Amino acid sequence: MKTIGSYLIERLQAFGVQHLFGIPGDYVLGFYDLVTHSKLEMITTSDEQGAGFAADAYARLRGLGVVCVTYCVGGLKVANTTAEAYAEKSPVVVISGAPGMREREINPLLHHKVKEYETQKKVFEQLTVASTVLNDPQTAFQEIDRILHAALRFKRPVYIELPRDMVNVCGIAHHAPMVIHEESDPGTLNAAMVEAVDKINKARQPVIVADVEIHRFGLQEALLQLLEKTNVPFATTILGKSVVGEQHPGYLGVYEGAMGREEVREYVESSDCVLLLGAFMTDINLGIYTAQLDTSRCINASSEKLSIGYHCFEGVRFKDFFRGLVAANLKTRKLKKRRSGSDHKAGSDNCQSGPRVGERITVKYLFNRLNSFLEDDTIVVADVGDALFGAADLFIRHRTEFLSPAYYTSMGFAVPAAIGAEIADRRLRPLVLVGDGAFQMTGMELSTAVRYNLRPVVVVLNNSGYGTERHIQDGPYNDLLRWNYHRLPDIFGAGRGWLVETEEQFDAALTEAADHTRSFSLIDVRLEPMDRSPALERLANRLAKRL
Amino acid sequence: MKTIGSYLIERLQAFGVQHLFGIPGDYVLGFYDLVTHSKLEMITTSDEQGAGFAADAYARLRGLGVVCVTYCVGGLKVANTTAEAYAEKSPVVVISGAPGMREREINPLLHHKVKEYETQKKVFEQLTVASTVLNDPQTAFQEIDRILHAALRFKRPVYIELPRDMVNVCGIAHHAPMVIHEESDPGTLNAAMVEAVDKINKARQPVIVADVEIHRFGLQEALLQLLEKTNVPFATTILGKSVVGEQHPGYLGVYEGAMGREEVREYVESSDCVLLLGAFMTDINLGIYTAQLDTSRCINASSEKLSIGYHCFEGVRFKDFFRGLVAANLKTRKLKKRRSGSDHKAGSDNCQSGPRVGERITVKYLFNRLNSFLEDDTIVVADVGDALFGAADLFIRHRTEFLSPAYYTSMGFAVPAAIGAEIADRRLRPLVLVGDGAFQMTGMELSTAVRYNLRPVVVVLNNSGYGTERHIQDGPYNDLLRWNYHRLPDIFGAGRGWLVETEEQFDAALTEAADHTRSFSLIDVRLEPMDRSPALERLANRLAKRL
Repeated sequence: MKTIGSYLIERLQAFGVQHLFGIPGDYVLGFYDLVTHSKLEMITTSDEQGAGFAADAYARLRGLGVVCVTYCVGGLKVANTTAEAYAEKSPVVVISGAPGMREREINPLLHHKVKEYETQKKVFEQLTVASTVLNDPQTAFQEIDRILHAALRFKRPVYIELPRDMVNVCGIAHHAPMVIHEESDPGTLNAAMVEAVDKINKARQPVIVADVEIHRFGLQEALLQLLEKTNVPFATTILGKSVVGEQHPGYLGVYEGAMGREEVREYVESSDCVLLLGAFMTDINLGIYTAQLDTSRCINASSEKLSIGYHCFEGVRFKDFFRGLVAANLKTRKLKKRRSGSDHKAGSDNCQSGPRVGERITVKYLFNRLNSFLEDDTIVVADVGDALFGAADLFIRHRTEFLSPAYYTSMGFAVPAAIGAEIADRRLRPLVLVGDGAFQMTGMELSTAVRYNLRPVVVVLNNSGYGTERHIQDGPYNDLLRWNYHRLPDIFGAGRGWLVETEEQFDAALTEAADHTRSFSLIDVRLEPMDRSPALERLANRLAKRL
Repeated sequence: MKTIGSYLIERLQAFGVQHLFGIPGDYVLGFYDLVTHSKLEMITTSDEQGAGFAADAYARLRGLGVVCVTYCVGGLKVANTTAEAYAEKSPVVVISGAPGMREREINPLLHHKVKEYETQKKVFEQLTVASTVLNDPQTAFQEIDRILHAALRFKRPVYIELPRDMVNVCGIAHHAPMVIHEESDPGTLNAAMVEAVDKINKARQPVIVADVEIHRFGLQEALLQLLEKTNVPFATTILGKSVVGEQHPGYLGVYEGAMGREEVREYVESSDCVLLLGAFMTDINLGIYTAQLDTSRCINASSEKLSIGYHCFEGVRFKDFFRGLVAANLKTRKLKKRRSGSDHKAGSDNCQSGPRVGERITVKYLFNRLNSFLEDDTIVVADVGDALFGAADLFIRHRTEFLSPAYYTSMGFAVPAAIGAEIADRRLRPLVLVGDGAFQMTGMELSTAVRYNLRPVVVVLNNSGYGTERHIQDGPYNDLLRWNYHRLPDIFGAGRGWLVETEEQFDAALTEAADHTRSFSLIDVRLEPMDRSPALERLANRLAKRL
């Protein structure tokens, strides 16, 4: 007979989970103990917030991530990271310990309780696609199946509350895990395919805009096949950046309306057939609504909708439509000679001629130089602000990943996310791009990197404040204390730090960091307070108009 | 004509608010600008979590506190601190910026949005006593009145969402702020008074147990009058600790059932009339339900209920009943000679004989020694764990405050709360007692202390892990990386740090910290991993039984 706790562990494992992120607390200690004695590994972070961001990154890379915390004082600390996972479609399972069902009955005020015992559940109903309290052994296994299935189907977070007196209670005997196959309606799928193929084949200048769901639904290989077969050129959104390697000959660049590079905008918006694949129509993805996409010319396929021109199709799964396209009789076009991937390193002349001795480092130089730092095993993790906007112009090679909360834009993501990413795939080495404001929120999670022998290279874009906001509306509230970030290795007793003020110093630090693979590297790059990337300049002007 | 933003600022000021805590973001920048140009001061922290804890502490000291953040990525980061304020009755106003009403209509996916535009409001409905979105100029002023009134009446948090396009919109003309006087029902109040006075006067051994609502409702002076007038001895709960100075001749100590000191338990539980004043009947306040209080012998008066023996009375305000008691014809008893306040320094012999050279420091020595460190202007801020349990035996003098999340017990409270406390009253110098686990969550808010020239003395009880949990159930998940906390001044470029391993070193560090009033002091006390206070020993045994 299986217990509820052990069935939960078994199902997580079956879906590829090997690590849980969290911080223990008395209501969840029993489950922690069970995990410690299973094949799953518990990764404990400095704060629950860090565990939440790490689990989100893990989920993006592995298809499912878990944050496991105690009741309310732990759970409510991951409200924000769970909201991020919801907003950006990352399948994170929130497991929260809770007071036992029996002790709830007799005791009105157990510690950590807020309003009612159901308060935390009600909060997470707002932030997840499915939620449950495992308070009944008769239904617990089914509930676990239902909840995990929802996470996998919708690629969004779910909530499981586990009262501490239920962990070791047996569920029903002979339960077979639920297997659900959802199918598209064959007639609708066929009609949509015919119409889509016709539209694409008739198009003079078709183009693909690939977004993040291609990643979430594991369709990167299928996309590559589609590209090889048709030679249709493609762009990505910023959220979908690096969904396939940017060395691909058909790659145009990041499309983000008027915010992005002009030649990409022009090509996409003058197309007579824009294939939006797995796209999020968010303000930032659409360049703060500067994107001009005529519905009549678009094919928009995602897990939430399928439309071809003005026709909407219901009951068609994104995967089926996508695979249908790959298999369909699409014209092979002539591959146009266009600027190759390496040309995307626009303005990289400074770097190519090497660093200038004594020259103050700028944001522009920093990103140009980073381009040549990227290796096949680099995963770029960008926090919010110029760390993200500047990174849009990074040239991400084949197999390199790019992670960023580019829609929800919650500060403090990058350092803990890098931890989740490296735990998810130990072959990857994270390059973390983070502003000083975001670093002050969660940067001390480098402590977790030390504990688990991780090797992120952290570049702190240190301009002593909230740089993006300075360009929207400035005031004393945008200023921050300047920490000596490069001295953090003294606090942790591990890692290496560099203070960088010139181009030359940055080059030297990067070179040394590349070789320092025993622990984290932290490069504190002191920038002028008002320095910014060209992308941020455009964005800030837009945002300021909306205040 | 007043704008919605300026009316909100005006009303906050009218209720004694002088500072707001938070972090800016684009949806709230307009309001930040307004605040910056008002008489209110914006205190920006490192992370929103820190702002939330600081506002909670500020509210406990000043009667109203404000945390002001941006939409979702800011607001959801203070879900936990708002829950704490709810659970422990602290009147915190959460002000969140939000997308403008007009832009919500036309744009389905603005950045920071989770599920719906109302998602954050729905989350905060679960965590506050009243909430509103100021989306209508016709009702905005009334709504501000209603919400702030609820915070003041219930001493609990409230939520105000301010869409960015409403900040500078004018409200209705000639609005007079709502003034609400709630009155007790005179007949019920009178009947309750008669019964209570009779019960108290007939009692052989009456005793008062004072709890935290006396503090929240500003009744400390009234309590002192009641004590002077009747000579009835009193205890406090741990949550209500130091509600009046512990030098008072009638003070018995902290009552917490079998968890506390035996003579206090015995006196309270053998009483034939226990006057519970402003009490929270929580598990921790009741010594994990070891308190034995016979309902028939209790008078239980709080903002939520009034009962005398088995009789409940409805419609009586706590304040009115309390003031009625002070004015009533209560017998003056003979003040019994009992151990004076200084006797509460039980077991302080080690200290009295001075530190022992080379002797490894223990938790017990630490708290004994701290007793003599407390000054009239000290405010003790204790985080969760042995920092709290050990502090129960600290002897808090007249005018000294004691702040701790003793019921909700959210880790990471102390450092940011000390910031809120010192900002609330610059005469106070915080003594922060914090475990290394809690410090790793929010300790970097010392950065905020540096920015605003605050002078907390932070004692890190460093046992390389979650010490309390080790005594409940141990596993690798209770271990933490040992930081060199004492070197943090190198990171901030300010403050002083000491590494302490012996009694003598601790004495020396405390003495130097007392004199170091220019910035923060941090004493990193390296304790044996399994060392603990006697109070924690008792508690852990209890908690372990409930796993």
